[in-house]
Formats: sequence, structure tokens, C-alpha cells
Amino acid sequence: MAEKIVEELRPFFDPKAVAIIGATNKKGKVGNVIFENFRMNKERGIFKGNIYPVNPKLDEIEGYKVYHSVEELPDDTDLAVISIPAPFVPDTMRQIAEKGIKAVIIITGGFGELGEEGKKLEREIYEIAKANGIRVIGPNCVGVYVPDTGVDTVFLPESKMDRPQSGPIAFVSQSGAFAAAMLDWAAMAGIGIGKMVSYGNKIDVDDADLMDYFIHDDGINVVTFYIEGVKDGRKFMESAKRITRVKPVIALKSGRTEYGAKAASSHTGSLAGADTIYDAVFKQTGIIRAEDFEHMFDLAKAFAALKDKLPKGDRIGIITDGGGAGVMASDAVAKFGLRMAELSEETIKFLKENFPPHAVAGNPTDVVGDTDAERYRVAIEGFVNDPNVDAILVIVLFQVPLLEEEKIIDILAEYQKKSDKPIVAVAMGGKKTDRYARMLEEKGVPVYPTPERGVRALAGLVRYAEYLKKVKGE
Amino acid sequence: MAEKIVEELRPFFDPKAVAIIGATNKKGKVGNVIFENFRMNKERGIFKGNIYPVNPKLDEIEGYKVYHSVEELPDDTDLAVISIPAPFVPDTMRQIAEKGIKAVIIITGGFGELGEEGKKLEREIYEIAKANGIRVIGPNCVGVYVPDTGVDTVFLPESKMDRPQSGPIAFVSQSGAFAAAMLDWAAMAGIGIGKMVSYGNKIDVDDADLMDYFIHDDGINVVTFYIEGVKDGRKFMESAKRITRVKPVIALKSGRTEYGAKAASSHTGSLAGADTIYDAVFKQTGIIRAEDFEHMFDLAKAFAALKDKLPKGDRIGIITDGGGAGVMASDAVAKFGLRMAELSEETIKFLKENFPPHAVAGNPTDVVGDTDAERYRVAIEGFVNDPNVDAILVIVLFQVPLLEEEKIIDILAEYQKKSDKPIVAVAMGGKKTDRYARMLEEKGVPVYPTPERGVRALAGLVRYAEYLKKVKGE
Repeated sequence: MAEKIVEELRPFFDPKAVAIIGATNKKGKVGNVIFENFRMNKERGIFKGNIYPVNPKLDEIEGYKVYHSVEELPDDTDLAVISIPAPFVPDTMRQIAEKGIKAVIIITGGFGELGEEGKKLEREIYEIAKANGIRVIGPNCVGVYVPDTGVDTVFLPESKMDRPQSGPIAFVSQSGAFAAAMLDWAAMAGIGIGKMVSYGNKIDVDDADLMDYFIHDDGINVVTFYIEGVKDGRKFMESAKRITRVKPVIALKSGRTEYGAKAASSHTGSLAGADTIYDAVFKQTGIIRAEDFEHMFDLAKAFAALKDKLPKGDRIGIITDGGGAGVMASDAVAKFGLRMAELSEETIKFLKENFPPHAVAGNPTDVVGDTDAERYRVAIEGFVNDPNVDAILVIVLFQVPLLEEEKIIDILAEYQKKSDKPIVAVAMGGKKTDRYARMLEEKGVPVYPTPERGVRALAGLVRYAEYLKKVKGE
Repeated sequence: MAEKIVEELRPFFDPKAVAIIGATNKKGKVGNVIFENFRMNKERGIFKGNIYPVNPKLDEIEGYKVYHSVEELPDDTDLAVISIPAPFVPDTMRQIAEKGIKAVIIITGGFGELGEEGKKLEREIYEIAKANGIRVIGPNCVGVYVPDTGVDTVFLPESKMDRPQSGPIAFVSQSGAFAAAMLDWAAMAGIGIGKMVSYGNKIDVDDADLMDYFIHDDGINVVTFYIEGVKDGRKFMESAKRITRVKPVIALKSGRTEYGAKAASSHTGSLAGADTIYDAVFKQTGIIRAEDFEHMFDLAKAFAALKDKLPKGDRIGIITDGGGAGVMASDAVAKFGLRMAELSEETIKFLKENFPPHAVAGNPTDVVGDTDAERYRVAIEGFVNDPNVDAILVIVLFQVPLLEEEKIIDILAEYQKKSDKPIVAVAMGGKKTDRYARMLEEKGVPVYPTPERGVRALAGLVRYAEYLKKVKGE
């Protein structure tokens, strides 16, 4: 089973040769943008496979030979990307079956989302696929983005949206526009996406298949889903239970309320289902539910860095150079169901001995506004060595006058590396802060723009660690 | 009463001449940064008053004559900014009283926050002030920032943090570091701050005084507070009731939970008080409570643009070019206690007549991923004319291929101007989206990065409108 799904989905993420059916030289058209994505990634040396545009009316695009039919395609073709009008897709699928291609991304819309006629087309396509062992992503989707291999079927040109760098997060989205916006946002936020899959009407490849695949994908530390509805609940649960024992899964499930469910039904025709059922399913399978997309990526960022360094318990230590931020973080610890660590007497003594009298040794520890990086080192050293502390939130307001920015970054990175307690940072501020935050993240310390978001991310780590303890202790 | 507070606080925000007591030429020192702030703002032509550095040991700084004592100061001095060690402050206050200066900002820390000795000093200072009609901001604070008049006592140099542009938001913070981080953040986000006051231990000028002042400040549309504790509850409530009839007040009150209250007590010595009492006070006085600082500024941004265009009811209309975002927004409408507008039959008919068949006429209306700006115009026109819609959330995923970015910005700005219904936008994405969002905001349409935050901001407008209806209908 395991190897089977890996083998089946591999061509979607790393094809030997991709056929772009409906490729065109008309700028801005879907079939042109997708062709250009592959062509440019080949030029950049990222896409290593062959590119075969298919169009009965053209002989050549940008120096590439155009094939007039699927039949003519070279035999190494293992992925077909389809962007031709819906009514022509079933016949093309038959040719693809004949040709022996086993992986197809159908970008084209105008299927099930438009009613009975489209649903009929979908059934026809699905039956051809099923009978011939073809796996299908889509239809009505933006498809796949893999920065490492150069697969990019996102038909929004780079002039309209940026692509994120590679990283250990997989992102799966039922909504194409949301997927595009998220890639664009991740690029700006410096968040690395290893694989993105937007599967639209998901007539074949679904959440469960992807979870089974990602179990075996060593480049992926954490899987995030934007879901409006799940069709096969049992299959979903079984795959979810398998993957969450190995790596964390985060789900943003919309259609929670009556209003949302109604909107989802007219969007992807999904039956949102009673939200309490989803809550129960997520809880039972160890999937972490995100409240909104900021939460989803806040969690993904934490797990991408700290999946193998989960907190042993729920006792949080807070270090700050601004009292107000420490108060807000303390409130958040209570709000998200965690506990404030009670520092040991040794730690308090150690801090007091090494602090000036106006710094506050406690939890939160306030190194106050005249701090330098060394005072932070004292605080972190104390917290790391305290057996009563499970995880550490370090709030760094880089604006305070005497704090050496690069030195505090190095200190945080150093302790993240040598301590077995996860460290999460909070940095509030403007452009300069943003730059320092990026530097910190590159060194393995996830950074959040508010105390609440930092604590909420820690809470995700704690909950997942508790789940693992429960299922593995069984 | 009204004119009195305006007259008393005026020198803090627009002094004829400022004395900087403890000015020094030592780079990076508080007394140097504050002097430099004023000096540079005078050079830029923003600060129009006179600048009098005071230091017994210097004769001249950067070409400015240095006064050796308060006694020597010219008679037009109406604001003194103090940054000398705490034990010297009472004597200086006596000289200030003698000199007849009526407004003092005490930056210096080391007072009440450090225990009984400091509290005694504070009482001494307060008694001198009281006996001589002097108003005091601080001690232990970063003071005042007013971009329009060039008053800037924030002792974090511009190399460490940016200053925001001018705008209709007043920001009051009990926490100095938080205030600095917020200014820095507002600068990056393009949010205009008209006046910032950080009052630290607030021995004299407090929240109530500031609310009474801001009632009369025509440049300020909305007042935001970060508070850890209020000392005089009755005074606070009376001022709050006065100002909220005229302009909205948003409060972020930390120390909500047991953990937070404990942290607040060791930060500013504030008694956080039972959180339910604050909830009741805010509700009764029409203050809108923010959940966190993102919420605080999300609300401030909405009110800054739309204070005079509040929704008549709670029925929200949603327009989107991405179905997923529409579902999330619909969920948020329920979550934040609003209602989805039921579009009239005329509107549905109008939309259907003017939409292509695959666009979804409803609420949400989904103009779908192949939309251009004109299809958005149709949708907005329909919603604006529908008597069942009170406020409109327009989600614009700028990434979709055919959408002309500047045209949709102009259309939104046009309807914001000509319709009496508030329009709030949501734009999710990266750098390009950020730039378009900024353009939209400059044209009077507040923009949020997620559907949830957009709807939550709308909910703030609705709640405040309801409060006004209630108190004015009495």
C-alpha cells in the first residue's frame, strides 16, 4: 500500500516528461502560463524533465516542438496537464489511457461545480481513469507547485504573484484562489513550501491519498490542509491516524457555521457537515485544527522548525524586554490552555545574582528596556536549565536602545540548537524588526508578530506532543 | 471644564518652547536622543517652537545655547521634558514651579515601579505639581509623539525604530516598549498616528484626562488605549461616556487572566481588577474592547476611515473572486455576531443579468477567478443599491489573471465615496498585494489581510453604531 501510493503520485511531483495539453503561444492564456512555468524552470535548471506541448494547430512554441495529438507523444511522458475546454476532456482521457500515461492534472473548470451536465462529464473521466489505473488531480484546480523539481501548474503568472522558496511544509488546498494567495503570502513571509497541491473538485486524488503520500516524503515535516468538505470520512480518518503518528497535520476547515456551510455548498458543492463531527474527527485523529489561515501558517512554521523538539509538557516560560508584552503573553498562556512555569528557587537565585536590581526575575522574566544581549543570555540559560520549564517564549523588542540585534539573534539560535526545549520568539515592530525576524527564522527560531500568536503556536506544539504521548503510550 | 483640559494639555502636544532638562551631547543617551528628535524636527521645519537644552555642565550642543538651570530659561518655556536621575527630580520640579512652567514630561524611571522609596518621590513630585497647577506625564515613560508639530520624546533613535506618518488615530499606552513597537509597526503598515502618549506610572495625566482632551481634538477620529489598570474608575467612566458619544474609543486591556494579572502587577504595579468588571465598564461606556493589538489597530483603521459612515444595521454583504475566501468570511460573519444580508430579488436579478453564467449571484457573490474589474463594479452596484445590505466586505484576490488592479482600486474608492454604506476590503497575498492594499487605503478603503480580520473590523463598526443609536435615542 505504502509504496503503491508513492509510486502512483510520484509523477505529479517529479515527472520524467510532462505533456501540456492545450499549450498555446497566446500570452496570459492558462495553457501558455503553464507551459511558460515549465519552460522557465527548465531554463533555470530546476525542471529536469522533458516538456511536450500538445496543440493540433501549432508546430512550435518558443523553440519547443509541439505535438498534434496525445498519440504522437514520446513514450517517456508520465504526466499530462490538461487545459482544454471541459467537453473535450473525456476523449483526451481515452487517448491518455491508450498512451499509458498514469498521472493527469486537469486544470480545466466547468465540471461538477456547474451542475448535472458537468457532473456527468466528471463521472465519465473518473471511469476512464479507474479502468486504466490513472490518477487524476482536479478538475477545476490550479494543480501542483514543487519548487525543488520545478513542477508549477499554477496558471497565475509570476507578474501577478510570487512563488515561495522550498521548505518542509506541504500545503493542500481545496480552493485554487486561496492556494494562489497563500503561495504569494508565503513568498513574502519567507515561509518555505515543499509541495503545494490544489485539487479543486477532487474526483480522484484526495486528502487521504495525499496524507498517505506525505508519510513517506522525507522533505516534508508538516502537512497543512484547507478543506471545505471531506467525501469519504472513513478513508480520511484512517490516513490521518497513520500520518499523525509520524508528522503533524494542520487543518483549516471552513464552513463551520450555518452561513459558512451555505457558502461552501455554492462554492465547491461540498457538504460541510456538522462542525462538531469535524471537531471530533480532528481530535480523534490528532489533526490540529486551525482557526484561520494565519493560525494555520503560524502552526506550520512552528512545526517546520520544531517537529523533532516537541515540549515535554505544558509549562511555559516567558522572557521579555517589555513588561506589557509579557502581560499579554501571560494572558495568552491562560487563554490557550497552557500553564505558566513556576521557576525553581535555583533559577530565581541565578537570575537575581546575574541581573541588575531593576530587572525582574520571575515568570515572566523582564530583562527591561535597558537590556543588552548578555542579559537575555542569562535569562535563557536560567530557563533552559530549569526542570520546571517545558518551552520558552522569548519576546524581543529589538527597538530598545542597548540591545545588540545580531548578538541576541545568535544567542537564541545557539540555545535553540543546544537545548532540548523548544524556543519560540516574538518580535513586534516595523521594517527593521522584520529583517531581524527573518534572520532569526533562518537560524531555526520561529518568530511571531504578537505575543498571542507566539503562545498559540506553542500551544499547537504542546497539543501534538500530548497526542503522540497518548497514542504511542497505548 | 472642556476648555480647561484643552488649555492644560496643549503644551504637551504643541509647545511654544520646550526645555530638555538633562540634555547631553553623549550619543545614544536618553537626554541626547530627545534633544536630537526636537533638533531634527526643527531642521525639517516641523517643530516650530524654541528648543532649550538644560545642563549645568555644558554651554552649547550642536549650536544650541545650553541653559545651566531652570531659573535661566526664557519666559516662553511652556513644556519641560525631564531625563535626569530620579532623586534630582523633586528639586527640579520646585524650580519648574517657580518658573511658572505648567507642563512636564518625566521620562526618568526608578520611581514607583521599584518600591516604597520611589513611591515617596512620586508623591513629593505630585504634591509640587498639584500645588502649582502643573500637569505631569510620567514618570517612567516614553512620553509624547506628535508628527504634525514635531514633538517627539521617544528616546529610541530613528536608527532603531521608524516613526509613523500623521493620521487620525490617537494611541495611548501604559507600556513604553509596547508604544515604541507599535509606532514602528504603524510606520511599516502605513497607519497614521496623530498623537501618541505613553504615560508610564501616570501619577497625574491619566486616561480620563486624555479622553476629555481628545473630545476636542478635531484631528483625531478614534482613540486607542493599551491599559493594564485604571486607578480612578469613576473618573474613567465619566470621561469615557462623554467621548464615546462623539468619537470611538478602543481599549486593549491586558491582565485579563490570573496569569496576566500577576504579570501586570509586577510590571506597572497595576491592580488589574476582575476582568468581568472591565468588560462591564467598557460595555456600559461604549468602549470597544480589543482582543489583541492586531484587533486594536484593525478597528482603529476602520474607524479612522469610516467613523462618519457607520453601518445602519448588522446585515453584511460579501463579494469575492475566490470561493474559499467567501466561505471563510461567511463563517466569520456568524462568529462575530453579525448577519448575512439576504439580497433582494431585484439585486439577484440585476446580478444574473449582468454576470456570465458561471459567476455566483448570491451572498456571498462570487465573481470567480476569471473576473475583471467591471464584473466587480456590477456586484458592488447591486449590493450598494440593495436595501437589505448594511455594510459590504469586498474580497479582492489581486492574483487572478484578468483583474485590472488599478481599475478595481478606483471602483472601490468611487463607491466608498458615493455610497452611504461602509466598504471594507480584504486582500490576501504577497508584496504586490501589499502595494495595492496601500493604494486602496490611501483612497479611503481599509484593507485587511484575512477575511476574519475584515469581518471583525466590520463588527466593531456595527457595535459602535448600535451603541450610539442606544445612547442618542434615550
